[in-house]
Order: sequence, then structure tokens, then C-alpha cells
Amino acid sequence: MRAVVFDDFKTFPVLKDIEKPTPGPGEVLLKVAGAGACHSDVAIFEDFEANNPAGLKPGFVLGHENSGWVEEVGPGVSGITKGEAYLIYGPIGCQHCRACSRGQDTYCENAATNPYLGVGLGRNGGMAEYVTATARNLVPLGDADPVAAAPLSDAGLTPYHAIKLALPKLNGGGKFALVIGLGGLGLVGVQILKALTGATIIATDAKPEAMAEAEKLGAVTVPSGSDQVAKIREITGGRGVDAAFDFVGISATITTAMQSMALQGRCTIVGIAGQPYDWSFFGAPYEVELTSTYWGTIEDLYDVVELYKAGQVVPQYTTFSMDKALEAYQLLVDGKISGRAVVTPNA
Amino acid sequence: MRAVVFDDFKTFPVLKDIEKPTPGPGEVLLKVAGAGACHSDVAIFEDFEANNPAGLKPGFVLGHENSGWVEEVGPGVSGITKGEAYLIYGPIGCQHCRACSRGQDTYCENAATNPYLGVGLGRNGGMAEYVTATARNLVPLGDADPVAAAPLSDAGLTPYHAIKLALPKLNGGGKFALVIGLGGLGLVGVQILKALTGATIIATDAKPEAMAEAEKLGAVTVPSGSDQVAKIREITGGRGVDAAFDFVGISATITTAMQSMALQGRCTIVGIAGQPYDWSFFGAPYEVELTSTYWGTIEDLYDVVELYKAGQVVPQYTTFSMDKALEAYQLLVDGKISGRAVVTPNA
Amino acid sequence: MRAVVFDDFKTFPVLKDIEKPTPGPGEVLLKVAGAGACHSDVAIFEDFEANNPAGLKPGFVLGHENSGWVEEVGPGVSGITKGEAYLIYGPIGCQHCRACSRGQDTYCENAATNPYLGVGLGRNGGMAEYVTATARNLVPLGDADPVAAAPLSDAGLTPYHAIKLALPKLNGGGKFALVIGLGGLGLVGVQILKALTGATIIATDAKPEAMAEAEKLGAVTVPSGSDQVAKIREITGGRGVDAAFDFVGISATITTAMQSMALQGRCTIVGIAGQPYDWSFFGAPYEVELTSTYWGTIEDLYDVVELYKAGQVVPQYTTFSMDKALEAYQLLVDGKISGRAVVTPNA
Amino acid sequence: MRAVVFDDFKTFPVLKDIEKPTPGPGEVLLKVAGAGACHSDVAIFEDFEANNPAGLKPGFVLGHENSGWVEEVGPGVSGITKGEAYLIYGPIGCQHCRACSRGQDTYCENAATNPYLGVGLGRNGGMAEYVTATARNLVPLGDADPVAAAPLSDAGLTPYHAIKLALPKLNGGGKFALVIGLGGLGLVGVQILKALTGATIIATDAKPEAMAEAEKLGAVTVPSGSDQVAKIREITGGRGVDAAFDFVGISATITTAMQSMALQGRCTIVGIAGQPYDWSFFGAPYEVELTSTYWGTIEDLYDVVELYKAGQVVPQYTTFSMDKALEAYQLLVDGKISGRAVVTPNA
Repeated sequence: MRAVVFDDFKTFPVLKDIEKPTPGPGEVLLKVAGAGACHSDVAIFEDFEANNPAGLKPGFVLGHENSGWVEEVGPGVSGITKGEAYLIYGPIGCQHCRACSRGQDTYCENAATNPYLGVGLGRNGGMAEYVTATARNLVPLGDADPVAAAPLSDAGLTPYHAIKLALPKLNGGGKFALVIGLGGLGLVGVQILKALTGATIIATDAKPEAMAEAEKLGAVTVPSGSDQVAKIREITGGRGVDAAFDFVGISATITTAMQSMALQGRCTIVGIAGQPYDWSFFGAPYEVELTSTYWGTIEDLYDVVELYKAGQVVPQYTTFSMDKALEAYQLLVDGKISGRAVVTPNA
Repeated sequence: MRAVVFDDFKTFPVLKDIEKPTPGPGEVLLKVAGAGACHSDVAIFEDFEANNPAGLKPGFVLGHENSGWVEEVGPGVSGITKGEAYLIYGPIGCQHCRACSRGQDTYCENAATNPYLGVGLGRNGGMAEYVTATARNLVPLGDADPVAAAPLSDAGLTPYHAIKLALPKLNGGGKFALVIGLGGLGLVGVQILKALTGATIIATDAKPEAMAEAEKLGAVTVPSGSDQVAKIREITGGRGVDAAFDFVGISATITTAMQSMALQGRCTIVGIAGQPYDWSFFGAPYEVELTSTYWGTIEDLYDVVELYKAGQVVPQYTTFSMDKALEAYQLLVDGKISGRAVVTPNA
Repeated sequence: MRAVVFDDFKTFPVLKDIEKPTPGPGEVLLKVAGAGACHSDVAIFEDFEANNPAGLKPGFVLGHENSGWVEEVGPGVSGITKGEAYLIYGPIGCQHCRACSRGQDTYCENAATNPYLGVGLGRNGGMAEYVTATARNLVPLGDADPVAAAPLSDAGLTPYHAIKLALPKLNGGGKFALVIGLGGLGLVGVQILKALTGATIIATDAKPEAMAEAEKLGAVTVPSGSDQVAKIREITGGRGVDAAFDFVGISATITTAMQSMALQGRCTIVGIAGQPYDWSFFGAPYEVELTSTYWGTIEDLYDVVELYKAGQVVPQYTTFSMDKALEAYQLLVDGKISGRAVVTPNA
Repeated sequence: MRAVVFDDFKTFPVLKDIEKPTPGPGEVLLKVAGAGACHSDVAIFEDFEANNPAGLKPGFVLGHENSGWVEEVGPGVSGITKGEAYLIYGPIGCQHCRACSRGQDTYCENAATNPYLGVGLGRNGGMAEYVTATARNLVPLGDADPVAAAPLSDAGLTPYHAIKLALPKLNGGGKFALVIGLGGLGLVGVQILKALTGATIIATDAKPEAMAEAEKLGAVTVPSGSDQVAKIREITGGRGVDAAFDFVGISATITTAMQSMALQGRCTIVGIAGQPYDWSFFGAPYEVELTSTYWGTIEDLYDVVELYKAGQVVPQYTTFSMDKALEAYQLLVDGKISGRAVVTPNA
């Protein structure tokens, strides 16, 4: 079968023929419906030689945002119906530690000794005609379109998890949320906040068209600039925001978020730029929580699928046939993709 | 000044002249903008002789849903501006116990020895040209219309408090809420759920016009009938609802609510009909919480005002001049009011 | 190998030779260290013909509270070390639904179509020399004694789960907890409350020796009697208890618990007697939650093991060799066991 | 009456005669039982000229940790009994904003325009024979010794509030808490953690005698040093601590705390040294919350009093007569006080 393979560091992925996989014990073989191309794939082949926290080694099929139809089930699997569509939860931990027991493989206690991070991250991913995954990682899609759904397993799950942990701060009348960075994740974040809270959503991005998109989704926008924090505070009646979500993570955006907080708010850094922020006791209102999150849980993904089925989250994407899969990655490298690129190997 | 006075049990209230009050220490005198007429007022003059849990004694001005403009402040009050509009939090506890310290006078630890329950409940209420209240019971309305706001201090606060306590069950995608009883409180409840959650709201009432109203507000409705629970479960994909709010409280409605619950859901009885429900371990899904609530906190009322200012809760009401105040109560007795009757003594 | 088999309804179990099992895909074979004999086993062979909610069919090895040493791992299992001791989480759901994804197989969404409830509940259990379980159901015991640990997988997990859900009500100074029913689960419940909260623990049981035991563990006891509720309230300064745990579940105990509650408390019925309680709005303080729980999650069991290793929960048990396994059940039937009977098939 | 007055910046306080106060509307006059001398008093007279965030002006009686017996009640006060002992909640906000409505005057929304921060902080405090306070700020002590209780209103309330917010992270078996800085607040923090959780408490301080004290209270201690974080992690089995409380707040202690955290833990900076910490996404485990707290709520103080009455928190203090009040401050300046210095003006 054809697959987009990450063959070496500092090397653009290649499209080549590899053997069709066979599902092992507890696994399922899926015919791929859609595989989202993610910025972190680019980071893998461009940057990870130097900076590779998870120890990924070249030689696997890319694609960690996948959906497909069940083709075959491996030994020991029951209750999974052939032909039905599923979204794949990407992270795969040891599956028998405390964190994995609650479906949070991202925080697997045996991460250091696991052979891979997940589907398309060390283990062969969905940029191929077929992919295997463990049965427990499958979330049923029912009648919903699996192609549009594919990116939700990361670009939907990541903001959902971050927002869900902050919902106690947004529960009630008169709340404010701030979203910084309106790329794929940030715009889904705006939709989730709109669906799940009554908060006024303040959004910002360097690109005017991204802000226009956020406004269509119901956000109030505030452009960058030296008076940005003052403008955000003005919208909130001086009080600040109860929850901020920074999908960028550079020093400037973290600072903006922290300076915009209300007393007792929660500031979640989701973007992995990794730049520093100079925290101090008197630098933020009392009881503001500065925190990070990473991806989400299997149960979160069930919730994301419900939001998608209800039309509360509408993924924005462009499809690429397998022939054009590398073109999708090139557009991503060149920063010319708006919304998600979804490769459809069997279209 | 003119006032609607509850003069005796089993006796319709009277409109008469009484002395204009003077604000005591820590109190504020307000010129009344609006005073909502509530079913519980009717209960007071019709039923409380026989069944009077709070020990209310005749001889006070009715009206516990009040708003007004500050006319004068009493000794020791600062920071309250004359002429500005405020909504009055009705319950008044001892003001120095643990529950009162957190603004939850409804659960005052000294309730048994307090001289009254609140403004218009033992202490003179807002069905008069002027009313006094303690300064801490005032929630600022800013530019918002105080007449429309008046009923929110009960008909908004009560469902808000019940819903706020249930929000942890409704946080996330794919949730379902059930509202039983679509009178004043229930319809506000539907609006609050719509504003604050992404849940599918299922609503029911014996009156078709009330259900039509709920549908306009975004609810799905299910009429009464022997298949009602089956229909509710069908809407939820068999799973049941994550939160139910019963604004009636008779055996039949509690039973419907409990039979409609999902595992780990929360069933809140708000209506005070007081009828029994036959609970048993195997009679409801595991971990369902059956509970009650009563009115709300001062801080809740701040939130309700925010929902009102944002247009997320739109009170439905008809105004009555002071001359027609008794007419409003007669319509209430006769069950001929839809929405809230608000008396405007100074209009 | 020898095993205690539930062969037919209304029939005492038999000790007989059956084939040693082989671990399937994703499964592990354990040499049994200890298998607790539970009252619900007695219910299975004595009562379940008439009343069998889970549809269990005769013909399986009993024992759902098990520990053992890994003897062999099945296909697809890694990271489980041979020879090491594990406690087995008993419930086994479909393992690929939302509830199972979070390690809460007890609330599996596909319970109706699952072939069994768990290890020793439809599927062969631990009253045998060997038992199999899915790898994710194993909680490592390290150096801790697996024989003493065995009963914790039910008699520890069930009260732990109930208490954990109530901890928000017990967090803080000046709290009160009530434990009704001081059998195996109730006494472990007292230990867990002592370890995890600063609450005053009030305990009651019909048997004086059970109450004496609870006092040794740090509880205050109140005997049954018409003034029991008054005495409980007196201990709490009139306020009532913030959390109650009823390990019996008959009408009388539920009523005692509900009448002893403080405002906003949580009353959890754990005992499965299944008798009715006549709930009404005015029958309990406002916002009291009446609820039930059933067993627990895999993650809860990790926590229970930590409490056990730390000496915060000390199981009380008597061991029986395989030759005496049926004797253990007979003592259980006769109500002559204090603490748990643990069968040690390989001792 | 005699009082310890803060007369000017950069000037040691003086003991002098001032007029006995009269309780205003809503206020109570108390005969002072005990007034704790706090490090922040020293900061006020030594440092606040240069750095005075709250805008305090000289000319008030010191003492914000006070207890006393009711001598007289002002207009509008009822339900407060003369002669009874109360602990005074120090912060006084506007008393009619949202934050004050829930008894959290520390976060008063009108702080910028309030005339003072609280009793002994702008308004005359308890280092005098008599003090006034608003009735709602009084927490009844019953039969408990008011002298020993005095320091609890800050040295007890501050750690209690910080810990209460972190309890959700410490609920359950196998948890770990870290306390950095074992002065008055830190040692009370250890006691509160011991009383309210089952966590292993790891404590550290530069002074060996402070660590010895913490060990007596049930903590495990780890001295400072380059391997401190490694040792803390070793105690936790590598996992890190679920909650850390830094009662110092310098860069070194915040760094130690953050490096010791477990995934999803909560790191609360309580100490007000105000030094910076260089936060980054990859610098701490995922979902760790870095936050601050300040003092507490009235309701928290009720809880602290319960812990004190139950013997779960035992204040350590030395009493000083009014004649020796300035000596107490001099010892504090010289760093020669262990435990709290409590001035007893009426002893």
C-alpha cells in the first residue's frame, strides 16, 4: 500500500509502497478515511534531530489525526463492527499504568520505556491506505463524515481538553475568555467556548483574516499592539478574563495572557513554542493559575465527537488525494494552508 | 406612602397608606422601580396559617422581588450612590453566621431566631413606593432597566442557583438537560441552560403554549403521557439526561425526572409541591444525585444580572401600576398571568 | 487445577478439578495468592435464580477479590513482569466504550451485551490455583503482601469510591461523617475516612463488637435506638453530618442517614439491600444529595493499594487453604466470619 | 487606653495613650484578649514608605491578628453576645461588592477606593486595650482560649486558605505534599495538611530546629542542598508532589517547588518575597498549576477555629503584656521570636 513515510531527519517525507499491516492482538485494521497533516509533523522531520524530547526515530508512516472504516479485527477484539467509521485516539501509552487506565495515555507513567508516542508518532500512522490501532483507541463516528472528523483527534481534542479543565472558571454569568492564536486549534477553541459557555470570547491573532474568522464564530477581537491588554481589560469592565488560552506560547503571548487575567482566573498555555515567562507573586492577580496542557483523553475525544455531530464544532479543512499528500506537507511547510489539510488515501 | 399589605391569613392583601420607612444602620432606602408578584405570596395569605414553616406573622408589605433607585443611605453605609438602580437580594439572615458570611442568607444558621425571612417575607417588602434593605443585599444594575430586572431576584436567582450547582454535570459535549415545569422559573431555566451550556435541553409542561415558548427559546419538548420517559430516553440515545430540574415537585414529575436520568446525573427538585418520591438503590442509575435547592446567594444574583445585561436572560413580564397592584394578585390567584406581574409603584 | 465452582443456582459451590487456563490476547495468567469470599458470592448461589439483574449463568469459578503472581502473559501484552504480585480489578466491561476508556468498567455502556460482569462474576474467578485477567486490570503490589491485599479489590475499592466522591463535602475543618453498617466494607470505610479527612467519624451498627472495632479505629459510636438521630445531631452541635455512608441500605438505615444530614451534605447508599426511602422536598435539609455508588474504577484501586502500603488501611482477614475453601463459604452463609475470609490456593 | 501605634515610616512603633474607640453602626467594641505581632507589621514600618502597594498611611494602631471579648455593640447589631469571645477576621473591604458578599474581603472589587485594608492595616488594630470591628468579621470562639487563638486569624487562615484550594489535588491515597518554609505559617500548614489529608508531607527549611519541629508534627524533612529535588522525588517514588506550598517565595524556593511537582499538581506561592521564577512550557510537568494566594475568607476562618477547637491546629506562641509589647516587636525585628508573639493588653 502507499504511505507517506518519515524516512530521515532533515528530510522531506516520501510517498512509497510499504506492506499492508496486520492487526495484532487487541488491535484493529482500518481503511483510512482521512489523515490530517499537522504542524508537529513538520517539526518532526525538520527539527527533531536536534530537539527530540520523545526520542522518535525515523522510519514510520506520518499521520496522527486519523479516521477510518474497520477492515479487520485482531485476536481478542470484540464489539467492533467491520465497515463502521471510527476516529482514532492517537496517543498510545503502556495501557496498563494508572494514567492509561483512565484513558490519558498522554501522561503514561511508562513513557520513558514505551516504543512510541502514538499512531503516526513512532508507530505507523494514518498517511497510508491502512492503519492499525488498539481497539480501545477507537471512538465511533456513526453516520458522521469521517473525513471532516479526522483533524478533530488532535486539532479538536487539544483545545477541548484545555477548555474542559478551565470550565469551572467559566461557569456562570458575566464570564470572559481570551483566545490567543487563531490557527486550526485556536479557531476550534473559539467554537468550543461558544458552544459550552456563556462567556464573552475575546480573540486575537497577528493575521486579520484569522480574526475575521473568529468574529464570524462569535468572538470579539482585539488586534496586537501596545494597548492590547488595556483594550482587553476595557471589554471586561476592568476585571480581566476568567480563562485565557494561549495557542502560541511565546513570551509575548504568555505575557499578554497573564496581564489580562482576572483574580482567580486560569491561564492555560497550549502552544508549544516553549518560550519563558517571568512569573512573580505580584505580577498577576491573586490565585491566577498558570498552567499547560497536552492533547487529551479518550473520553474527551468522545465529547469532541458529540460536539462535531451536533454541529457545534465544524472542522475547516481541504482534502488531498494520496497523490497530492506530499503537496499538502509542502503547503504546510510554506505556511500556505488555511484550516487543516486532510489526506484521503482511499478517496 | 401606598403599599400592598398582607394583613391577615386567609385574607386577600389590601392597598393602604403606611409610613414611609427610614433606613436604619447599614441600610438603604430605595424608591421602588419594580416589585414582582410571586406565587409564594399567594401561598402566604392563602395557606400559611395552617402550614407556616418560617413562622411568618401577618402585618407586612408584600414583595420579595424588588428593584429600585437609591433614595437615602442609613448610618454606616458608604459606596452606595444615590439615584442609581439596584436589584435587591431578598433573603436576610442574621448576617454574622458562617452561611451569611458567604452571602447565603437562605441557609442562615440562626434562621430559627431571626425576626423575618427577608424583604417582603416578614419584613416590609417592595410592593410600596419605598423599601429599605441592607446595603450588602444590593446588586448594582447600572444602565439596565430595573423594572424588567425585578423578577430576576427570585424567578431568575432560583433556577440559576439550581443550574449552577449542576453545571459540572453539563460541562462538555453531548450532554442533556431536562426541565420539567415551564412557568416563570422553568422558562428562565431554559434560557440559562441555553446560555451557559452546550446541552440539548428537553422541556416539558402540561400546557402546550408553555412548551411552544420553550421551543422558541431553543428547547426540544416532550409532552406528558405514558411514553414520556421513553421519548426522553430516545432523544438521549438511550443514555438519559445528565441533569434534570423539576420546577413542580409532585410525585409524578419527580418520578419522570428520576426515570430519565443517566448514570452519574443530578436531579434537582426546585418546585416546592413537597410530594413524596419512592427512592431505592435499584430505582435509578448508579450515582444519580437526588437533591433540592432553595433560592440562591448574593453572588449568584450578580451573575444573574450579568446574564440579564447580556441579553442571555430576558424576563417576561407585565407591569401594573400601584392602582392595579391588587388586580395583579387577583390574576395570579386566578392563574391568568403568563410571565411575571411587576408592580411599578412609582411609574 | 482445583477450583471452587458455582455449578447451579440454589446449590452450594463445589471444589473440583478443572483445566488450568491459558491467557488470551491482552490477558495475563496469575498464580493466585489470595481470593476473598464475599457476601455477594452467597447471593449468587442462593438468590440469583430469582433475582439476577446481571444475567449471570452458573458454571464459573467464584472469587472476584483476587491477587496473584504473574505466571505467563498472553499475546500482545508487554510491561508486565513474571513473578511479580498484582491485585486484580474485578469488573470487566467491553473495554472500548466511553466508561471503560476511563477505567470504570462497572458502568460499561455495553453491559447488556457483555458475556460477563467480571472476574469471578460470569468469567472464571480467583478461587482456583490460577486465574486470567486482562493486563489493564492489574494493579502492581510491589513488595506488599498480596494475600492481605486480596479483599481490597472489593471491600476496599467499594468504600473508597463512595468516600472519594464525597470528599468535597468533607474537605475542611469541623466536618462530620456518618458510617452505618460496620461489616467488612464499613470498617474499611472508617479507616479511609480517618486517613483522608479531618472529620469526626460517627459510626453505628447493631453489633456492639463491630462498634468497639470502629472505636479502635478512631470513630465515635452511637448505638441504634429511637434517639439515635438526636444523639448524632448532638455530636455535630445540632448541624448534622456532611457526609453519610450507609453500607446496609434498608429503609431504616437510609432514614437514619437522611435525618442526620447537614444542609448541603451528601448521603451515599452503598449497601444493596434495595429497600425504599420516602424522599420529599421538606424531608431533608436543602441541597442534601441522596445517591448510590457501585464498586469503583481502576484508578481508585491504585489509590487503595497506596493506602494499604502506607498502613492507612489494614485489611482484617482469616486465611483458608484450598482444602478449606468451602468451609469459608459455609461460615459466610452461617454469618460466622468476622473480617474477610481469604482463600490461598497456593499456600 | 494604651496602644501600639505606627506613627511614621522608618520609625519603630510607639506605645502611647489614645482614646478608647466607640463602635459605629454595624460594629462591635471588643476588649482585646490577644493581638499577634506579625512580620508584615515590621514590613509596614520598615519598608512601606518605598513600596506600599495598598497605600497605607501612618497613624494607626497595629495588630491584625486579634481576639477579644465583646464589650459593646454599635447601632444595628444584634445576635452578638456581650462578654463572649470572638476571633476577628482582619480584612475589611467595601462590604457590598461581589467578593465581599462571599466573605472574601481580601479580593474586594473596590480595594482601590477603600480607606484601609483591614483591622490593624490602615484602621486601628488590636495592639490596644480595645478594638472595634464590623459584626460580620467576628467568628465565635465559644469556650476556646482566645489568647492562643489570636494568631490564627492570619497565621492559621493564610495556610488554611492555600491548602483548601489545593485539597482536590490531595484527595485520595498515595498523595504527596511539599511545604517550604517552616516559620509560623509553614508549621501551621504542616498541621493542617496532617489533619485534613492522608498525604505524605515533605517539609524543608534552612533552620534545622524548624525541621525538627515539622518532624514532630508528622512531616518527613529534606534539607536544602543541590540534591534536594532529587531527594524529594525519591520519596515520591519519582513521581513528584501533588501539591507544594512555598511560604518563602524567593526564586530558589519557587524553583525547588516547581521542579518537585508531579503531573497535574498545584504549586501555591504563599510567601510574599516576590522574587521571579522563569516559567516555561517544558519547564514543569504538564498541567501543573502555578498560583498564589492571599489570606482567606470569613468562612475559612470558621473552619480554622474548628481545627483549633479540635486540637488539630495548636498555635505556638509566647505572650507579652502591654508593657512589653514593643519588646515583642523588637524581638521580631531581630529574628529572635520562635512561634508567634501575642500581646495581651488586658492580661
